[in-house]
Amino acid sequence: MHKLGIIGLGNVGSTLANNLVQSGAVDELVLIDKREDKLLADKLDLEDSFAASGHFVTIRTNDYTALSNAEILVISVGDIKAYFGDNPDRWVELEINRKNIKDIAENLKTTAFSGIIIVISNPCDAITTLLQKELDYPKEKIFGTGTLLDTSRLKRQLWQETGINPSSLSGYVLGEHGDSQFIAWSTVDTVLLSGIEPVSFEESVRKGGQAVFNGKRYTNFAIAKCCQQLIETIFQDSRSIYPVSTYHEQFGVYLSYPAIVGRDGIVSTYPLSLSEEEEKKLSLSAQAILSKVFRK
Amino acid sequence: MHKLGIIGLGNVGSTLANNLVQSGAVDELVLIDKREDKLLADKLDLEDSFAASGHFVTIRTNDYTALSNAEILVISVGDIKAYFGDNPDRWVELEINRKNIKDIAENLKTTAFSGIIIVISNPCDAITTLLQKELDYPKEKIFGTGTLLDTSRLKRQLWQETGINPSSLSGYVLGEHGDSQFIAWSTVDTVLLSGIEPVSFEESVRKGGQAVFNGKRYTNFAIAKCCQQLIETIFQDSRSIYPVSTYHEQFGVYLSYPAIVGRDGIVSTYPLSLSEEEEKKLSLSAQAILSKVFRK
Amino acid sequence: MHKLGIIGLGNVGSTLANNLVQSGAVDELVLIDKREDKLLADKLDLEDSFAASGHFVTIRTNDYTALSNAEILVISVGDIKAYFGDNPDRWVELEINRKNIKDIAENLKTTAFSGIIIVISNPCDAITTLLQKELDYPKEKIFGTGTLLDTSRLKRQLWQETGINPSSLSGYVLGEHGDSQFIAWSTVDTVLLSGIEPVSFEESVRKGGQAVFNGKRYTNFAIAKCCQQLIETIFQDSRSIYPVSTYHEQFGVYLSYPAIVGRDGIVSTYPLSLSEEEEKKLSLSAQAILSKVFRK
Amino acid sequence: MHKLGIIGLGNVGSTLANNLVQSGAVDELVLIDKREDKLLADKLDLEDSFAASGHFVTIRTNDYTALSNAEILVISVGDIKAYFGDNPDRWVELEINRKNIKDIAENLKTTAFSGIIIVISNPCDAITTLLQKELDYPKEKIFGTGTLLDTSRLKRQLWQETGINPSSLSGYVLGEHGDSQFIAWSTVDTVLLSGIEPVSFEESVRKGGQAVFNGKRYTNFAIAKCCQQLIETIFQDSRSIYPVSTYHEQFGVYLSYPAIVGRDGIVSTYPLSLSEEEEKKLSLSAQAILSKVFRK
Repeated sequence: MHKLGIIGLGNVGSTLANNLVQSGAVDELVLIDKREDKLLADKLDLEDSFAASGHFVTIRTNDYTALSNAEILVISVGDIKAYFGDNPDRWVELEINRKNIKDIAENLKTTAFSGIIIVISNPCDAITTLLQKELDYPKEKIFGTGTLLDTSRLKRQLWQETGINPSSLSGYVLGEHGDSQFIAWSTVDTVLLSGIEPVSFEESVRKGGQAVFNGKRYTNFAIAKCCQQLIETIFQDSRSIYPVSTYHEQFGVYLSYPAIVGRDGIVSTYPLSLSEEEEKKLSLSAQAILSKVFRK
Repeated sequence: MHKLGIIGLGNVGSTLANNLVQSGAVDELVLIDKREDKLLADKLDLEDSFAASGHFVTIRTNDYTALSNAEILVISVGDIKAYFGDNPDRWVELEINRKNIKDIAENLKTTAFSGIIIVISNPCDAITTLLQKELDYPKEKIFGTGTLLDTSRLKRQLWQETGINPSSLSGYVLGEHGDSQFIAWSTVDTVLLSGIEPVSFEESVRKGGQAVFNGKRYTNFAIAKCCQQLIETIFQDSRSIYPVSTYHEQFGVYLSYPAIVGRDGIVSTYPLSLSEEEEKKLSLSAQAILSKVFRK
Repeated sequence: MHKLGIIGLGNVGSTLANNLVQSGAVDELVLIDKREDKLLADKLDLEDSFAASGHFVTIRTNDYTALSNAEILVISVGDIKAYFGDNPDRWVELEINRKNIKDIAENLKTTAFSGIIIVISNPCDAITTLLQKELDYPKEKIFGTGTLLDTSRLKRQLWQETGINPSSLSGYVLGEHGDSQFIAWSTVDTVLLSGIEPVSFEESVRKGGQAVFNGKRYTNFAIAKCCQQLIETIFQDSRSIYPVSTYHEQFGVYLSYPAIVGRDGIVSTYPLSLSEEEEKKLSLSAQAILSKVFRK
Repeated sequence: MHKLGIIGLGNVGSTLANNLVQSGAVDELVLIDKREDKLLADKLDLEDSFAASGHFVTIRTNDYTALSNAEILVISVGDIKAYFGDNPDRWVELEINRKNIKDIAENLKTTAFSGIIIVISNPCDAITTLLQKELDYPKEKIFGTGTLLDTSRLKRQLWQETGINPSSLSGYVLGEHGDSQFIAWSTVDTVLLSGIEPVSFEESVRKGGQAVFNGKRYTNFAIAKCCQQLIETIFQDSRSIYPVSTYHEQFGVYLSYPAIVGRDGIVSTYPLSLSEEEEKKLSLSAQAILSKVFRK
């Protein structure tokens, strides 16, 4: 049985739930959200799709105990309205989600859940760091989607330059899922770079989410799909490589760097040969996260 | 090549676009919406998912000429805010969508598009009737999703009573995709009916959409999936049976009754042996639609 | 995790393994066959497809203990050469498979396997009956594919007559997966029957497998797909209705009749309103199976 | 509509047909084989799976004219018995397939087919070269699966060494789909190579097909899946990179080197920075093919 929980049924969580139901990737879903009406509406709407979808999924709502034998738990809480002000970055949700995960942790501790936790909530690296501490959870069993999304945006943008399918391209965005992130150019095939102006290109990748947000006041499709890819990797124990937000001892914080992901979570990092400059950027990105996450 | 257009990228249209991209059901999408910002945000968000999805889709926006060689065009325009008042039914969108489809028809006529048109917009039977007239389109090449969604809700509700997979169950909701619809009980296996109180059960099916709407202020998952099922049926020319809104000569209007759907649209109706009472209800439902659609 | 075992990697078992790997329906496969070379070749060939398929499956071979935590075990042993003589029916494999399942049962008893057993091996009803006894297994946790395949052939043939998608059609073949089976015409929509000559039509359904066998000396695609459908039903606990070979107390033997299938196997039968003649045919079919299965 | 032809329904062609039907990747199949009985048996067996599969495909047999509007044609003719002798390599089929494709070309010329031709038949580079000439076909619209399969085997073997999902790994086998092929080590991440003995590793990749063949007397799963991946790439026009057998002006022959594949076939090669030694091996591999293909 493939059983999975999602806490936070906003734009991302509900799109993820729909993706998982329509693709048949899960057999049982546990959906948790404080907005009971929204939650039940999503459940009913998903169940109304069964006759057409050919897949069947058992859906439970607001039942933490149902998580006990789940393999995976996705954390996608947040408050999109926090971004409606001027010039927001992902840190605007820090205090909101700090509170959210305290509540989640308290509830989770009452259950026997011992699966993999994937954090989507922003600021992703900070929230993953905080939730791991709050739960005192094995570090390899909780990680954030981190720059997997930014890496997808990097590949989308390389596709726009070269016409080559994003899935065929290599390259990583590393560090914070936020402003201090950087493209590890040493991981991008130089063949693809002719005609690219690195600084503006990188800025455009960094602001990719904002471009989407500006147009529809939320982002959901790409992040939901990135998370789904991680979910299938865990179910299959396929040990694929993704730039996700994992704990780095030397920095004392979660940030994104390629990791091998399997059924038990993070198997190991996948070592890159970064340039000295890139190593420095990674360290600076860690500092940027650290400087804010433990500040109250 | 599987090429499809969607006009109207609201909650339903954009969920449908995401479903089609993530499942690989289409190779090329033409998305049309007056809210250019929203449209480009959805496009970018979908493209950001390519690296993770393994599927690739060429997405064009606001380009009617790109529809010329599309096999299918989905009409999902509307204004969800029309429902925010007291006690709305689906007719509240009539004048809004009457205007919308005039505009769409005008634009479509400038193209060589000759594919199948699927209408989701509400009131579904009325809008399908009006768009067919407006375009003077072959009646078998345009139809509405109609009570396919209500039939899915009927099966969901039968599942809740019996525990049997909705996909395994038979039965049809016929007539208007709206208040005058009815369950054709003669098409439901009597084995399933023990313990069911028909009147309240039928009311609950009829108000299924409202239950979802009340919780999240829109409905999207089930209707998007129903439409996707029709799309795949057309691409495959599978000649499957669906209760969709088709033109009925004897009534002079579109309403839902089982039809065989294939690459060329409606192949024929699939004849039921309705009871006299059911035949009467069907006729009354046709009157209910007719009485409003041609009223100005 | 979705874990499944297949015992017997002949044409059916290996096609099923490929279907499951390519669709991502399983995470872990345990393949068992006495022909070690064939088995390892299939494993290697499947693993060589991972880079192209996007799905990853852990494959174990000839390890009964690996079945301990499997959810499902498929029995597809047999010897296709038994059919190479004159005018064979499915009973030619009885003694071969009687021996095979004794061996399988002995091995299975050494494991902690407690999942669902699906029997494909022929004569299907007899082998299911015998294996249940041999294992003293809960009757609801072991069943045969039975006339699910014959029912698919019935629908294929109705499609050829009517042009309507087999998936849209209802109707059951009941009884033995063999010569005493019959079409329960009362379950077929009379609308579809005009122009059909029942006797020759039924004969053609009954001999459907032979037509395929005559052309390629084995049958694999349809039976593998039917079995895959049952597997997904069990994984999803979808409680769908299938005409599979289940134990019928009143007959004291396994034979096919609609059953509701879920994670725990057979939930219950799904009651039909058969005509008196059909009830009699069912009873005769039970006798036909009984008369041979306990004969030595 | 996705329409595709397969000429040669042996182990590979029929497995491919089943994969395409079960995944819904095609809407219409044209199957061509001289063994009419085998062909009709496969058709019937596939059609018997429709009721269970949820996908519907129109299947035509031995009708070259039906290929006229197909997007893709797969050539998988051959005679597996040619390999049953001592120590066979893929050249044993040269004369058999030279004859086969003359016949195919003659038939194809009578049709309006102008789609993409994918050659699986062995010796793959030679047969692709010969068929292109025979048809005087645009060189970018015909290519061979070439070392895409060998590259999958390389990745499978790297997975066995490292435990990392083959889909996550990079690296190419280039040159002949045969004995003169080589691993372009410069394209494999050096991180993966520790502990690998290059010579024996490469030999093992080269003989990967033989290992499978020895166990079951044919290979089908991996090659069918590789071909399916190419087919979906063409349908989606995704412009993905694959090491397939394309025409190289400087060598005057088809051989494998990364190419960007789209709806119109080969868009361009994808340039690698090979070492001098690798360039030399590529040239030697071209000579090896050339020395045999034009010899009569």
